[in-house]
Order: sequence, then C-alpha cells, then structure tokens
Amino acid sequence: MRIGVLGGGQLAQMLALAGHPLGLRLEFIDPSAEACAASVAVQHQAAFDDLEALLRLAERVDCITYEFENVPSRSLEFLAPRCTVYPPLAALALGQDRLQENSLFRQLDIATPDFVAIDGLDDLQRGMDQIGLPALLKIRREGYDGKGQAVIRQPQDAAAAWAAIGQRAAILEALVPFEREVSIIAARHPGGEVRCYPLTENTHRQGILSRSIARPDDPMQPLAEEYIGRLLERLDYVGVLALELFQLGDRLLANEFAPRVHNSGHWTLNGAETSQFENHLRAVAGLPLGSPRALGPSAMLNCIGRMPPAAEVLTIEGAHLHDYGKQGRPGRKLGHINLSAPDGAALEQALAQAEAILQKGA
Amino acid sequence: MRIGVLGGGQLAQMLALAGHPLGLRLEFIDPSAEACAASVAVQHQAAFDDLEALLRLAERVDCITYEFENVPSRSLEFLAPRCTVYPPLAALALGQDRLQENSLFRQLDIATPDFVAIDGLDDLQRGMDQIGLPALLKIRREGYDGKGQAVIRQPQDAAAAWAAIGQRAAILEALVPFEREVSIIAARHPGGEVRCYPLTENTHRQGILSRSIARPDDPMQPLAEEYIGRLLERLDYVGVLALELFQLGDRLLANEFAPRVHNSGHWTLNGAETSQFENHLRAVAGLPLGSPRALGPSAMLNCIGRMPPAAEVLTIEGAHLHDYGKQGRPGRKLGHINLSAPDGAALEQALAQAEAILQKGA
Repeated sequence: MRIGVLGGGQLAQMLALAGHPLGLRLEFIDPSAEACAASVAVQHQAAFDDLEALLRLAERVDCITYEFENVPSRSLEFLAPRCTVYPPLAALALGQDRLQENSLFRQLDIATPDFVAIDGLDDLQRGMDQIGLPALLKIRREGYDGKGQAVIRQPQDAAAAWAAIGQRAAILEALVPFEREVSIIAARHPGGEVRCYPLTENTHRQGILSRSIARPDDPMQPLAEEYIGRLLERLDYVGVLALELFQLGDRLLANEFAPRVHNSGHWTLNGAETSQFENHLRAVAGLPLGSPRALGPSAMLNCIGRMPPAAEVLTIEGAHLHDYGKQGRPGRKLGHINLSAPDGAALEQALAQAEAILQKGA
Repeated sequence: MRIGVLGGGQLAQMLALAGHPLGLRLEFIDPSAEACAASVAVQHQAAFDDLEALLRLAERVDCITYEFENVPSRSLEFLAPRCTVYPPLAALALGQDRLQENSLFRQLDIATPDFVAIDGLDDLQRGMDQIGLPALLKIRREGYDGKGQAVIRQPQDAAAAWAAIGQRAAILEALVPFEREVSIIAARHPGGEVRCYPLTENTHRQGILSRSIARPDDPMQPLAEEYIGRLLERLDYVGVLALELFQLGDRLLANEFAPRVHNSGHWTLNGAETSQFENHLRAVAGLPLGSPRALGPSAMLNCIGRMPPAAEVLTIEGAHLHDYGKQGRPGRKLGHINLSAPDGAALEQALAQAEAILQKGA
C-alpha cells in the first residue's frame, strides 16, 4: 500500500521509517531539493500547490496525509474528490486559523485562555480592556514556533505589537501564568476507535520545543483525554492529533491543536508500545490501532542548530539518537534524543547527562 | 557514516532501518534482483565473490559487515586489508565449519552434545559406537535451517544417511533429548564491552525457527551469558553474536553460533530497549552499545510461505508486523510478528491469537 504525504521533512521521514515494516511505502511532495524524507521515501519535487504534481501523487497512492498544518488547504480541497485525504480537511482548515480553533474549543466546552478577535488597533484597545494584561497578540494564520506573536504587557505596547505582527488579522489572548505546558496525542481510526498516549510535559525555549517528558499516571491525564476526545469526535478525525494545553492548578486550558504527528510525541518512537508515527499510518491506512502504552518514563530533547556527537549521547543508558540528516542552521530542528529509563530517578539522571552534552555544543 | 553489508535480505533490511536514525547509511552487495534490502539501502548487484564489486564497496564505506554466515570467507579475506570488517574473519571461518565450531566450544569448556568428525562410512560406523544412537549426521559446511542433516536411529540407517548428506565431510552428533531450545544474543564493542540480551526460548518446525519467546529472569540466563562471554572474548568479537543452546535439566549444550544478527532476536525490535540491529550497527561503527533490557515479556512468530493479513494481526494488543516485502514461496521467511505484553498471561493470550491467524492461512 502506498501513502502520499504533503511535506518531506523529518515528520515524513519518521512516518516512512515506521511504515516500512508494515509494508506501507511513502511518496511525498516537497519543493525542496534537501527534503530529508528523500532518504527513505520517494520524492515528487514540486510546490505544494502544483496541481499536476498533486494529481500524479493522487494517482499513485491509496491515501494522502500531510506533515505540517500550513499546507495550502486549496491543495487538499483539490485532492479530496480524487483520493482519500486524512486527517479530514475540516481539521486542517480550523487548525489554520487561531480564531476558528479557539472558537471550536469554546463550542466543545474545552477551556481556553480568554481571547478576542482583533482586526485593527481599535479592536486591540477594546480587547485589552476586556481581557486584561499581560496578553498575547497572535496572527490568526501561519504562525508557528512562536513566530507572528507579540506580548503586550502595558497598554502603551499595543501599537508596537500591532506593527510587530504586520497588522494582520489576529487574536488577543490572555497570557496565563501556567505552571506547566503539556500536550496529549491521540490516534483515531476511521471506525471511531480512539487511543490516547500518556500526557507529555513540554518545555519551550525561544518559542521552540526543547524538551518533552512523559511520566506514567499524570493526574491530568483523564481531563486531557476528555478534551481531545471531544475534538476527535467533532472533527470525525482520522490519524494522529496533538492538543497543546496549559496547566493552572487542576485546570487545563487549550492552547492549540496540530492535525498531525507532533514533536512532543517523538518520545513514543522508543518509549511507547506503538509510536505516534506507526499509529498515524495505521489510522490513515485503515489498519487497527496499536497500543499507546508507555513502556516506562520517557523523555525527548530536541537537537537544535547542531547535532551533538553520537558517541557521547549514546554513552547514556537508555538514550536513542534520531538524526534527521539535515544541514545545521541556527534554530533548526536537526534531530532529537529519546531517553527511556526503568524509573523516574534514572530518567532524571539521563536527562541531566543529555542536557549537559547538548549545552556543551551550544 | 556508511556501512557495507554482504547480503541484502531481511537482516540487511532491518539493519538499514535501524541505522537510519543514527545517521548510518547502508550499502550492500547481493546478486539478486529481488534483494529486499534494496527498499531502504543502496544495492550493488553483484556476486559475493566479485572482487571488483567488493573493492568498490570497500572504497565507499567505513566498515563492512555481513548478514549471513555462508558468505565466501575468501571475499572477507580480500576485504580485510582494505576496510574494517566486523565481525572478525575468525568468527566467520569457525562458524562455517561445524567441526571447528564444536571443537572451539570444547576448548572453551562450553558443553556440547557428544560429537565426532566423519569423513567416510568407516568413521560413521565407529562414531555410532562411540556416541550411541539416535544421532544426527550434519555436513560440516553450508548447512542451514535443517538442510544437510540426517537422523540416524538404527545402525542400518547409516549408509542411507551418509548418502542423504551427499557423502560430504560431516560430524556425527548425539541427538540429545532436550527440554528446550534456547538462544542468547550478545553484542560486543571494539573496546571489549559486552551486553547480553535476555535468553530466548525457540521452537522450530521442519528445521525452520517458528517461534521465539523472551521471558524476563530466565533461570538459565547466567550460564548462557557465561558461555557467550567466553566465545566473544576468544574471538575478539565485534558486533552481535547469537549462540543456540539445548537445555537438559540445568545444563545447556551449545548447538551452534551465528556471527550476525539472528532470527531469534527479532523480538528485540519491539521488546528491548535497543534492538539487536541497532546494537550490531553501534558495535561495528564503534559507537557505545545500547541497553539490551527487555521491556517486558515478548515473543516473535515467523511468517513462513505467506504473510497473514495485516488487518487481522494488528487487532492483537501489543502486536507489530514486520513485512519484508518478499514474494511468497513455500518455506520462505517473509516476515514476522512481534508480540509484547505487560505480563506473561497477556503474552500467552496474544500468542494464541497470533498462532490462530497464522494457522488459518497455512
């Protein structure tokens, strides 16, 4: 069976590696001559809105999926009548617009930080009154990894923030004093079955995920499962979905969802019975989902800008290196280190060792 | 880093998949136009004794390894001065000759069934007197999966057995009434570090491995580790080595070793902290070895002759399918099912389900 993917970065690469043992072969569209998934999957080098290339892909594969949420939704609309496309278009379209996304959370009774739509400086003045400060001004579309955002701490910052985001349609969101950032990842089968991974605790640096830790039996697991379950059902979702949340006390506030495999689920490659990549493919291929059971406490550290020496990383008991084979560049995700341990104390020790190695090269 | 492999079957394929995240890229020599490793590694289509092809491979890679023990040892002798070759030639040469292999076990005080060298019918008569019956007549070289063997139950079977194995140099070995066939797999680093996987209990059908089960804390683990440790040290071994043993009471008798990743270690892909494939590559690439810790009880069932439907296999909790993408043919290993479970009872249940699926198609 052949699966088409829009995008040929590390997510497509890890999907291809996970699909191989199942007999699933991946082909992807990506305009880049350096798409790292090309080492394990067939590339159609073309723009994401190249209709001829899309058509060619649709004719060669049984199903099409995507590895990033900023794929042109028109491309998927073009493909949908010609080929099965998972996750469904609605998830992509809603996830591409922060206002619609937050409105969906609200409709589904999924708590979010307070927010209002912002279409001009006047809205922004009213929004600050309504929500209070500090607040975060975020463009509605195409933001990622902290880009297209500006923090407003005092009323007089408003104009500068509005300029900083390029005066684009936005939302203003209360900046919540969260205790933890967490995410939950779940897979849903076309038949409706849902499997949820253990909650992951995430740490960002400069807007980019740097660390995820999955500890068994997180007390927030039931609420997170409840929230992502509502989303999956409402979207009649197929594939893997990630939901990022802020924790304040015993509350979880939804930040955003990503209709794809997610960086905060990379630990599942070594730390779960079935990885998020395998389960995404099983779902879109209509195969039964695998167990998301954690095999013990696990963690993931991103390698950003440069790769640490493999010979050092692998001295750590329970460490696995995932090198995407990309050229180094400041701020670029080049790989990650997964850490597994028999218990929490051993995991903390492994984390300290790995972070020391990463910092040495920083 | 590039690793060369002699042979492009499923073992090379699984090595290539395991190497990819570590940034190790595999290139292999195989004369077959259907070598299944070609889906994930670069093939040099040539005979194993094609010196030009061997030279080309040696120039392109940092290290050469092999995936089957019947690779011509002259090819490795040709390569050795030109490129690092692991596991060492001595291991391959000894493993290719059952007489030398058994003699090595004897030298290292590793118990074996009684055996004698057989070069003719006279030897065979004397051998039967010495060892007793029933006994197994095995050709010294090139036997695998039960081929090149004949059982002698009564003295009058001798001539037929000698004819059946083609009157080739052989050994006669006592047919021991073993309770279990087990194997131990270990990896050794160039620096001498050894890591042993949990013992695996194996079941063969018609000379072909059909099932392996790895249960934590097997009481025979210490003795098996002792035996394989002696072999690894004596051979100054680098890479993964498999040692097959018969258990009688609290004794283990060595049957044979394989200087490579081994079918009875396929469960480690899903059931161990680090798979045998990853550890073989780490060893030959000089990278630190990974933990061989079992993540729980695990099992492997071979798919022989035909692949079972993925949609059925994957309904089993904890099941992972490994489809090598080979054409079906009676007696051919086409893939395997790995089963992991949180406890022994759950594993037994999963095994029963998987065996029922495999038998339905047989």
